[in-house]
Amino acid sequence: MSEIELAADAEDDVYALDRETIREVRAAVEAEDQAALLAAMEPMHPADVADLLEQLGSGERRELIALLGDEFDGDILSELDEGLREEVIDALSPEVLTQAVRELESDDVVDLLEALDEPEQQETILDALEGSDRLAVEQAMSFPENSAGRLMQREVVAAPEHWTVGDAIDFMRSTLDLPEQFYHIIIVDPRYRPIGYVTLGKVMSSDRVTKLVDVQEESFRTIPFDQDEEDVAYAFNQYHLISAPVVDDDGRLVGVITIDDAMNVLSEEHEEDLLLLAGVGDESIADRTLQIVRQRFPWLLVNLGTAILASIVIAQFEDVLQAVVALAVLMPIVASMGGNAGTQSMTVAVRALATRDLTGSNGWRVVRRETLAGLLNGMAFAIIVGIVGLVWFGMPMLGVVIALAMVINLVVAGLAGVLIPIILDKVGVDPALASGTFVTTVTDVVGFFAFLGLAGAILL
Amino acid sequence: MSEIELAADAEDDVYALDRETIREVRAAVEAEDQAALLAAMEPMHPADVADLLEQLGSGERRELIALLGDEFDGDILSELDEGLREEVIDALSPEVLTQAVRELESDDVVDLLEALDEPEQQETILDALEGSDRLAVEQAMSFPENSAGRLMQREVVAAPEHWTVGDAIDFMRSTLDLPEQFYHIIIVDPRYRPIGYVTLGKVMSSDRVTKLVDVQEESFRTIPFDQDEEDVAYAFNQYHLISAPVVDDDGRLVGVITIDDAMNVLSEEHEEDLLLLAGVGDESIADRTLQIVRQRFPWLLVNLGTAILASIVIAQFEDVLQAVVALAVLMPIVASMGGNAGTQSMTVAVRALATRDLTGSNGWRVVRRETLAGLLNGMAFAIIVGIVGLVWFGMPMLGVVIALAMVINLVVAGLAGVLIPIILDKVGVDPALASGTFVTTVTDVVGFFAFLGLAGAILL
Repeated sequence: MSEIELAADAEDDVYALDRETIREVRAAVEAEDQAALLAAMEPMHPADVADLLEQLGSGERRELIALLGDEFDGDILSELDEGLREEVIDALSPEVLTQAVRELESDDVVDLLEALDEPEQQETILDALEGSDRLAVEQAMSFPENSAGRLMQREVVAAPEHWTVGDAIDFMRSTLDLPEQFYHIIIVDPRYRPIGYVTLGKVMSSDRVTKLVDVQEESFRTIPFDQDEEDVAYAFNQYHLISAPVVDDDGRLVGVITIDDAMNVLSEEHEEDLLLLAGVGDESIADRTLQIVRQRFPWLLVNLGTAILASIVIAQFEDVLQAVVALAVLMPIVASMGGNAGTQSMTVAVRALATRDLTGSNGWRVVRRETLAGLLNGMAFAIIVGIVGLVWFGMPMLGVVIALAMVINLVVAGLAGVLIPIILDKVGVDPALASGTFVTTVTDVVGFFAFLGLAGAILL
Repeated sequence: MSEIELAADAEDDVYALDRETIREVRAAVEAEDQAALLAAMEPMHPADVADLLEQLGSGERRELIALLGDEFDGDILSELDEGLREEVIDALSPEVLTQAVRELESDDVVDLLEALDEPEQQETILDALEGSDRLAVEQAMSFPENSAGRLMQREVVAAPEHWTVGDAIDFMRSTLDLPEQFYHIIIVDPRYRPIGYVTLGKVMSSDRVTKLVDVQEESFRTIPFDQDEEDVAYAFNQYHLISAPVVDDDGRLVGVITIDDAMNVLSEEHEEDLLLLAGVGDESIADRTLQIVRQRFPWLLVNLGTAILASIVIAQFEDVLQAVVALAVLMPIVASMGGNAGTQSMTVAVRALATRDLTGSNGWRVVRRETLAGLLNGMAFAIIVGIVGLVWFGMPMLGVVIALAMVINLVVAGLAGVLIPIILDKVGVDPALASGTFVTTVTDVVGFFAFLGLAGAILL
């Protein structure tokens, strides 16, 4: 297959990077032609430049950055995959880095600092900032990691509760430094505690004499500064918020979070769950070979442990296997079906826990339902594999053994698939992280034990 | 474990439904006390009421809906899980349904109609709408399914390119029916084609004489009406859009999509990928037992097919297994490790395809990297399992056999894990849907074949 054939279909992927652009960029880097490079990159959004850097090999990446020189746009750093930021920052000259960091909004600098492991790089970036910017970033960094306080912007537009629409309009039109992005006016009480908010659209469409509180949005929620960002993202998605005020311990307004930040958190959180469920840590397509080897080794080691556990179970039945070699042929079927059924139940449960749809009030109903579903599918597949066992090896009792083992293992799979994530969640472990290993261990062990144990009892 | 112990921790789940509220709701339903029910539900957002309905058993659900009577809020229908909507609509009286539907915005009615399979229910809902509302909904339904046209709202605020900030303010303040939610003024050319947009915040903070085009946002994108909603969600997330104009084939403005709708699509799309990867279709925690049995059966049947394929491979080596029963004990280890490593590579690849980070320009690099990573982890685990085989069974050559099989299977796992999703994507099959089955089939077959084949060649 040639490189062209491996390429994604242009029609399918409207927002994928244009192949022609990538070729031009590469040619310009090869020819060390800065003018051609800037021309090729001119129409690209910083997010697309970041994607481009992620898709290049690390040598080409450094060459491109060097050729860009002081034309490197600071926003590219914010858009870059976290795993690549340190490498790219290392590749920038101190002057370019300083200039790039100064171009960023303070919440983007905070996000950048959070992703860096090396204290020296953090220090370099803080040093690039001037007076008040540095102070704002340092204050944000004093909030707990992954909290609302780190996510929020500090610039807000607030109005006292007695203000009219006219007061608000006059205020906004006379204020020189309104925030870059804002969609609501937050109404605060005399102690600066938010009590409601009004959309700018409502302000525009109401009479000047209307009181702000009379046109405020029906649904209104404040977010505590120390709330976990995943909860913040959930609230935005659940309650269709566009922006929400952040308050301190006394309920006073300290900042505002907008939906685009929440959307970003939601997207990262989903990615994390997906990768964790598959036994991959925080990995990206741009990581280097040794990084991914190191990243995946521990998960495979845990899997080896559980596989050896299953082998120990099998070893208990060496005499049975010696007597009926057909058992060795069929035994992976029971384990594999159990593993699959368990993964199905588990994924639904992990997802429902993440979306708060699986709670104390329906926990037992879901456990009962999964167990019953395991029983019903178990009986259906018992008939099928029973016939397979009978026809293939001509031994009726072998069919009975595999059928019974199938029922047992699918019931256990349904039960384990939902109980294990619930229990992990209760004891404070991320169910996406560890459920998979536990569930397949249970279905492997039970699968081999039930099949070989029943075979020993019935066939010998 | 009691029901209380199964409950989620209140501290962990700030937005989970309050247990006390659920208890009050249930008590009110039991006592058929409408006043108490309304009192208990008063502070609940429609999204929370929908979650509550999803968590009840289906009998209790019907009782609650009956007791609510005409206090049923139409927004609850939009917030409900798609799988439950038909059941809840069936439970509503025709009068309550009519009233509920009339309360909804037209884009929410479209979303509701899309989720209904029964034509009679669709007809009932359309009949509930009056004149212009019905027309708007029918026009939206004429756009392709899951397209931008269905997602957009038709109400927009547009301004000619020669307008000043003052013109825009005067226009908005004199227009009676501005849209419920809007954040931008879209600038259009004389043929009503969008050429830029201005945030309301910018309008508020600029002089009346400033031209709108002079304060328009730097980055501006229009969305074709027939673009797939997943691409729309991607664009919002990639380019940090808050709202975006939708255009027809001639580039004329026909509507606007806001970020909250895009966030919803993003969230549903992630859920779909996660469930598909686990071999569960479009399932929800509120589904009934028979639904999930029927839903999961086909996936398990496919898995049974691949498991039997693996068994057929094993059956070719019955004589080898007969001679060395230790092989039966160890053989699941090689297959299991291959399955795990393959799933790791596959998940990273599927995710990168979804986020357009895996493309023609880095496809071969990723394939090479995954294969090399498989080789390196394969060699590391070859040493470990080689020692296990040697120590456990005291047969040095058995250690060699399992070590070699491990290297082969992990290399194949890395290669298959990334190539299979890329190929499926190219031929137009959703890689999340089918990759898992193919990858584990390959690693099972190769795992058993390599281990037992090498054993036959080396040990016998």
